[in-house]
Amino acid sequence: MALSSWNDGHAKLAILDFVAKVTLKGGAYFVPPAERIAVFDNDGTLWCEQPWQVQFFFGRDRLAALAQHDPSLTQRQPFKAYLENDQRTMHALGKKGLFEVAAAAHAGMTESAFTRLARDWLTNTYHPSLGVPFTDLYYRPQIELLGYLREHGFKSFIVSGGGIDLMRAFCEEVYGIPRERVIGSSVKTRFDIQSGHGELVKLAELNSFDDREEKVVNIGLHIGRRPILAFGNSDGDLAMLRYTKTGRGPSLALLLHHDDAAREYVYDRQFHLCPLSEGLDKAIEYGLTLVSMKRDWRTVFGASVSLTIPGTVPARA
Amino acid sequence: MALSSWNDGHAKLAILDFVAKVTLKGGAYFVPPAERIAVFDNDGTLWCEQPWQVQFFFGRDRLAALAQHDPSLTQRQPFKAYLENDQRTMHALGKKGLFEVAAAAHAGMTESAFTRLARDWLTNTYHPSLGVPFTDLYYRPQIELLGYLREHGFKSFIVSGGGIDLMRAFCEEVYGIPRERVIGSSVKTRFDIQSGHGELVKLAELNSFDDREEKVVNIGLHIGRRPILAFGNSDGDLAMLRYTKTGRGPSLALLLHHDDAAREYVYDRQFHLCPLSEGLDKAIEYGLTLVSMKRDWRTVFGASVSLTIPGTVPARA
Repeated sequence: MALSSWNDGHAKLAILDFVAKVTLKGGAYFVPPAERIAVFDNDGTLWCEQPWQVQFFFGRDRLAALAQHDPSLTQRQPFKAYLENDQRTMHALGKKGLFEVAAAAHAGMTESAFTRLARDWLTNTYHPSLGVPFTDLYYRPQIELLGYLREHGFKSFIVSGGGIDLMRAFCEEVYGIPRERVIGSSVKTRFDIQSGHGELVKLAELNSFDDREEKVVNIGLHIGRRPILAFGNSDGDLAMLRYTKTGRGPSLALLLHHDDAAREYVYDRQFHLCPLSEGLDKAIEYGLTLVSMKRDWRTVFGASVSLTIPGTVPARA
Repeated sequence: MALSSWNDGHAKLAILDFVAKVTLKGGAYFVPPAERIAVFDNDGTLWCEQPWQVQFFFGRDRLAALAQHDPSLTQRQPFKAYLENDQRTMHALGKKGLFEVAAAAHAGMTESAFTRLARDWLTNTYHPSLGVPFTDLYYRPQIELLGYLREHGFKSFIVSGGGIDLMRAFCEEVYGIPRERVIGSSVKTRFDIQSGHGELVKLAELNSFDDREEKVVNIGLHIGRRPILAFGNSDGDLAMLRYTKTGRGPSLALLLHHDDAAREYVYDRQFHLCPLSEGLDKAIEYGLTLVSMKRDWRTVFGASVSLTIPGTVPARA
């Protein structure tokens, strides 16, 4: 049965209807497979982003490792805030500032070394409150949706504010999405040949912070085609949802609402890093389909996760 | 019969051997499909780039159209040189400068409008000496190779100095390569919503000039995985060929030599815009497989092209 982790209701019906319509050969809304592009935000859309996005745990662990060699980091901002989990300072840095701090920690590292490090970390590090590896934090209904779209000739891309290389370290195993279909925030790199061996080396400088309008800019650069389906969960996704909805043909833009205190977390307007506010106010005007985690999802996580400390995410201190 | 437009010889054997080796399940050199990434330069590798790369004809026609509305362009450099086909000044601008002039001509245009314009131009404009539409200028042996790789589970990408959106306007029909697998030179864009309709708008500023080391940087950004096969035809491709050749497992890097005065053009070191010089000198050291158009290709073009004015490309004036 398709989408068995989805409850029957408005959202599931909208998905089934849309896919049926665009894949019906000879139908008025038929879309050829090459144009069946779907884009998904990652944090909070495909996997859990509470109490912090996974990349910030990763950045903190990396900074802690670096601080072993250079203890002065523990006394210097913004590293100090990261290492001490100083929420007020971290909120002030914002999502982009936090990404830049984590990115700085990897300057000079080759892409291959980074991938090994990231895979090792993802395998061996556990979510602080859920007690499972981070890669178990995917939402089961979304894995089903990705598979359902794949079976119907769609190509799904991740378009996330998260670091592109960290996502590429697990996207194939967890989501079935190949590395080349991952778009994210990135640093500049340089190609070096040393002793006859060529490597890409990460630099400290930001290349792209993939949020808001920049998500659409990067869709243009990486995909070169307007998506017909988009799925997000915060105001940072609205630009790509609206880009998707204002194409010529049929389109579907979905917005996940975290309203399930029993099985995950409840947050929207008050989540400082990635609020969902305009999206709630303008959902009808923008033609967005709201997905309620509480009502629309029969299950939330895969089998390994049993959430014991769910709750409401506190507003900014 | 596989690769029937290729003559039996060193190059064809290298391709057949390589593909057999990496697709042999249980073999020592087996590469899983997800890692079978192939990258191809476009101009001079997949299609003809003489007497000028197609994008320069496109740029000139666009500037000529703009000059109808703004005749002052015909008196201002660098537009004047472009419009008058002033070879000396154009050579001085270089490949990057020429791309920037053409890019400036499209500033303010939406991506959708550009695609319509490019498709229209490609359909209705003929190569000045060959007398066929530009999209007939593909090399038949390469179309066969792309198909052969596809049949063997490879994903092929274009990685070219050419404008990314111009290539995307014909890559699917001509090469069977989807738009999202095209990497090229690009301008920055901005996402605009006007009267409720969202569009990407081209800006005058260069985003990436996809040549030499930048090709590898963009492979990292767009693909996120080291290719195992690369095909180029100039020194501008050497960085990506060497990146490919210096990976851990099996790899194949091919370099097309334009040495066929009877069926195409003869050029290498003296071609000012995209010389092939270091590649010839260092082919053995870099582990490159040279492909001779004259000896290795049974046919060069598809049926529609009969080259009547072939020759040697003159050195810089």
